[in-house]
Amino acid sequence: MSAIQQNVESSSAAYSATFTKGHLALPPAKKYLVLTCMDARIDPTQAFGIELGDAHVIRNAGASAVDALRSIVISEQLLGTTEIVLVKHTGCGMLTFRNEDAYGIVEKNLGQEAVAELNEKKLNFLPFPELEAAVEKDVAFLKASKLVPKSVVISGWVYEVETGKTRRVV
Amino acid sequence: MSAIQQNVESSSAAYSATFTKGHLALPPAKKYLVLTCMDARIDPTQAFGIELGDAHVIRNAGASAVDALRSIVISEQLLGTTEIVLVKHTGCGMLTFRNEDAYGIVEKNLGQEAVAELNEKKLNFLPFPELEAAVEKDVAFLKASKLVPKSVVISGWVYEVETGKTRRVV
Repeated sequence: MSAIQQNVESSSAAYSATFTKGHLALPPAKKYLVLTCMDARIDPTQAFGIELGDAHVIRNAGASAVDALRSIVISEQLLGTTEIVLVKHTGCGMLTFRNEDAYGIVEKNLGQEAVAELNEKKLNFLPFPELEAAVEKDVAFLKASKLVPKSVVISGWVYEVETGKTRRVV
Repeated sequence: MSAIQQNVESSSAAYSATFTKGHLALPPAKKYLVLTCMDARIDPTQAFGIELGDAHVIRNAGASAVDALRSIVISEQLLGTTEIVLVKHTGCGMLTFRNEDAYGIVEKNLGQEAVAELNEKKLNFLPFPELEAAVEKDVAFLKASKLVPKSVVISGWVYEVETGKTRRVV
């Protein structure tokens, strides 16, 4: 067992020993979802004030709304959420490369078969060159999608990894 | 401003007031990623013992490895992670419907234009009928992908929303 797997086991033992929230319902109690980046420096629970059971939390590279659409539709149409809080962040890795750079790195590290799989899956890494503009663009994408009802409240934010602050963009 | 937006602002003010982790580096310090579900009843930080800055956390509906592939490749190839901890959970919404059910709900709630967008994007909601089998299938998918080097350590787990425990499946 790896050290990381051992850490999951010991953390689980400690967490479950004092766990008292086994009664929570499946649908988020406060009917909202947070979409943010997978970045290791973000703790959405603490930074954005999410109580256990209150909100779906979707995380991917760059907090991409395009990439998260499947989960967003499930959250809204099957589990009743009606508000989206989208949070990108300063210092995001997605600001540092272009799609073709990522394809080049995959080819160098993993070879032609891996690039063939990228091509077959039409995988777009969805990087972005400018942070606030990317927040605005993703919010606009969600507002334009027929899969997101007009009644859904959508806000776009930036989390600052340097200060721990979250500020509204749109 | 909505009550949820007000909560983000007040939580951010409290969190940033005592924030001391502004120095953390972009790549995860412990070089691993956790893939889990967006479910509101999961707090990965506490339940799986993730220290701020140590691991990428990817979350989507059902902890789908297929859906997370873009983020996983970025995590490994661009940001140096070498281990994947995949955690699905009991009581998951993805156990409760089939893809055609979700299409039917979208059609009923949002109409033909929304279904046309689902079809255009070839959106598969990726539900699964059995929990442990789904963990095994997703781990097998990652192990078979040319985009995941053989050197990457992969484990599959189930988090129990009733008890707060996380147990290893594969």
